[in-house]
Amino acid sequence: MSLTYRDAGVNVARAEDALSKVRERIARTKRPEVIGEVGQFGGLFASPGADKVLVATTDGVGTKLEVARLLDRHEVVGADLVHHCVNDALAMGAEPLFFLDYFATSKIDPNVFSRVVGAMADACASVGTALLGGETAEMPGMYAPDTYDLAGFLVGVVDREKILGPQRVREGDALIGIPSSGLHTNGYSLAREIAARRAMHERSASLRDVLLAPRDELGGATLGAALLAVHRPYLAEFRALRAVADIHSIAHLTGGGWEGNLPRSLPEGTAASIDRASWEVPAVFSLLARLGDLEEMEQFDTWNMGIGLVLAIPAEAADAALEAVPGAIVLGEVVPHSSGRRVVFG
Amino acid sequence: MSLTYRDAGVNVARAEDALSKVRERIARTKRPEVIGEVGQFGGLFASPGADKVLVATTDGVGTKLEVARLLDRHEVVGADLVHHCVNDALAMGAEPLFFLDYFATSKIDPNVFSRVVGAMADACASVGTALLGGETAEMPGMYAPDTYDLAGFLVGVVDREKILGPQRVREGDALIGIPSSGLHTNGYSLAREIAARRAMHERSASLRDVLLAPRDELGGATLGAALLAVHRPYLAEFRALRAVADIHSIAHLTGGGWEGNLPRSLPEGTAASIDRASWEVPAVFSLLARLGDLEEMEQFDTWNMGIGLVLAIPAEAADAALEAVPGAIVLGEVVPHSSGRRVVFG
Repeated sequence: MSLTYRDAGVNVARAEDALSKVRERIARTKRPEVIGEVGQFGGLFASPGADKVLVATTDGVGTKLEVARLLDRHEVVGADLVHHCVNDALAMGAEPLFFLDYFATSKIDPNVFSRVVGAMADACASVGTALLGGETAEMPGMYAPDTYDLAGFLVGVVDREKILGPQRVREGDALIGIPSSGLHTNGYSLAREIAARRAMHERSASLRDVLLAPRDELGGATLGAALLAVHRPYLAEFRALRAVADIHSIAHLTGGGWEGNLPRSLPEGTAASIDRASWEVPAVFSLLARLGDLEEMEQFDTWNMGIGLVLAIPAEAADAALEAVPGAIVLGEVVPHSSGRRVVFG
Repeated sequence: MSLTYRDAGVNVARAEDALSKVRERIARTKRPEVIGEVGQFGGLFASPGADKVLVATTDGVGTKLEVARLLDRHEVVGADLVHHCVNDALAMGAEPLFFLDYFATSKIDPNVFSRVVGAMADACASVGTALLGGETAEMPGMYAPDTYDLAGFLVGVVDREKILGPQRVREGDALIGIPSSGLHTNGYSLAREIAARRAMHERSASLRDVLLAPRDELGGATLGAALLAVHRPYLAEFRALRAVADIHSIAHLTGGGWEGNLPRSLPEGTAASIDRASWEVPAVFSLLARLGDLEEMEQFDTWNMGIGLVLAIPAEAADAALEAVPGAIVLGEVVPHSSGRRVVFG
C-alpha cells in the first residue's frame, strides 16, 4: 500500500478546517490599512508615513501554556500572547498596528486551535490591532500529545520624536507603577515547580489537586485560577497617561522580573529607588513564596510582584498621572547609581 | 533550602550568554533604517513612505528540525527560516526589510543556539534584511531533550501599484519555474516516515543509518545530505526577472505542494497547465517516492518536486525571463478552468 502525507501524520485540510471556524472573528480585526484577504503568501498593510518609526516585537507565553492545558483554559494564552506583544510595543511609545501568530503542535485539535486563535483575534480586536496572518504547523512527534507552542509578532508605530527610552530619563523622575493582574506570562516554570513539589509533599495530591484547592490566602479562590489571570494589556492606561504627562520611558516587567527589566528603561549611571511599602504584593505571589519557601530577592528577580508596567515621568507630573490612571502608584524615583543592583528597594 | 528560578530549570543568564556569542553577526545585519540597539522592548525601524505597503509573513521550518538535529546540522534550519520568509514576501512583490525570530527549547544549549541564530544572522545579512529582534524561550519540560522549535517573522515593502497577485494574471500568461534545492522546508514528516519505515524494514538499520547510506540515485551522496540542502532564497532571481518582465504573480511552492500553492497565485476561473516534461524531477524526490512507494499525485501535493517558485508573466516576456534567470524554465501557461484540480499536468 502506498504511503501518503496523511499517513505520516500531517493533514493539511485539518489546519484549514480549524481556521475556518475563526475566520469571522479574524475578519473583525481588519483595519482600513489592511489590503486584500488572509491566505496570501504575506499579509498586506499600508505603510505609515516616512516620519514614523515601526516597532517590532516577538513573544511567547512560556510554560503558562502547561497550566492552561491542564485546566482546559486555552483562551487565556491566546489573549496573553497579544497583550504581551502590545505591552512591549507601547514600552517604546508605540501604538499597535498588526499582529501575526505561530501555532505549532504535533496534531491539530481543531477545538483547541479555534479557542486559542479565536481568543487571539478577540484580543486583537479589543486593542485595535489587525490579525494579519499566521502559520499553523503540524509537526508529528515534535510535541508531546495535546501540547502546543505559540509565538506572536506585532508591529506598531511611533512618531520619530516620541520614541520612549532611557535617553529621555532624568534623575529625580518619578517612577509610576500600574498593577498587574498576576504573573502575566513569566515565571511559570517556577510556579509550576512549586506546585509540583507541593503535590509530591502532600503525597496523594496531583498537580491538578494543588492547582484546584481553594486557598484562604486567595479569599477561597484557587491557585490555578490566579495563575490563569489574563496578562493585562496597558494600552488604555498608556494613552491616558500620555495625554497628561510627558512619558520618558516605560519598562514592561516580564521575564527576569524587576532587575531584568526596569534597568532597560534607565540611562547608565542611574538606578531605581523603589519604596516597597508603596504597594501591597498580591496574595498569589506571597502564597507561591510561602509554598516554595522563596527568598524575597528571588521573587523580585522572577515575577512582577503585582506591578506590570513602570513609567518614568517628570516628578511634577506625578499627581496628574495618578489622576489619569486609576490604580496607578508612585513607586519611587530615579536616583544616581554607583555599583551593585540597579533596582534598590527601601 | 529555598527554591530558585534556576532550580526550576530556567536560567535567564544562559540565554544572554548564548546571544552574546552571535551579537557581532547580528550587528552586521544592521541597515540604515534601524534605530538604536538590540535589547529594547521592541526593535525600531524607520517606516517606508505612506505610498508603500508593508508585507508581513511568518513561517517555521517544520520537522526538518528533526533531521538537522539527528545529523547535527543546525545551521541549515537557521538559514532556511530566513529564506522561507523572504520567498513568501517576494511572492507578494516585496523586498525584505527586517526579520525577528522565536527560538524555544526546554534548556538552551548555547552551542546549538548560537549556531542556529548565527546562521539566521548570516542569512539575513546575505539578503540585506535587518535581524531586528527575537525571543528566546526556555521552557522546562515543554520540549523533548535537545529539541527546539523556530518561528520567523519578516516584514518587507512593496510599492502599492506593484503588489503581485492573481488580479494581474491573464489567460495565456507563461508560467516560469525556478528550480528548488530540494524539499526546502516542507514535506519532511513524510520524508522522515519513509526513512523510518525503511529503517524498520532493513531490520538492524537505524533512521540515522538510512539517512547516512550512500545512494546510487544521488550519485553516491546520502539521503540525509539531500534532505538538508538549504531552502533556496529567490531574491536575486526575483530582482533579475522583475528587471526584464512585468511579473503578474508568484507562487512559492511550500506546504501543500503544487495544488496547495499554485492556485493561490491564479485568478478564479483559471488553471495552470503544466508540462511535466519541461523539467526533470530531482533524484531526491524519485528516491523518496521509490522508498515510500508513493503515488505521483501524493508527491506533487506534498513536495515542490524540484520547482520552488512559479511566476506568471506575459507570454511575450518568456524569452527575456529565461535569459535573465539561468536555470529558469517555461513550465506551461494559464488556461481556463472549469472543475477539478487547478494544476493540470500534461
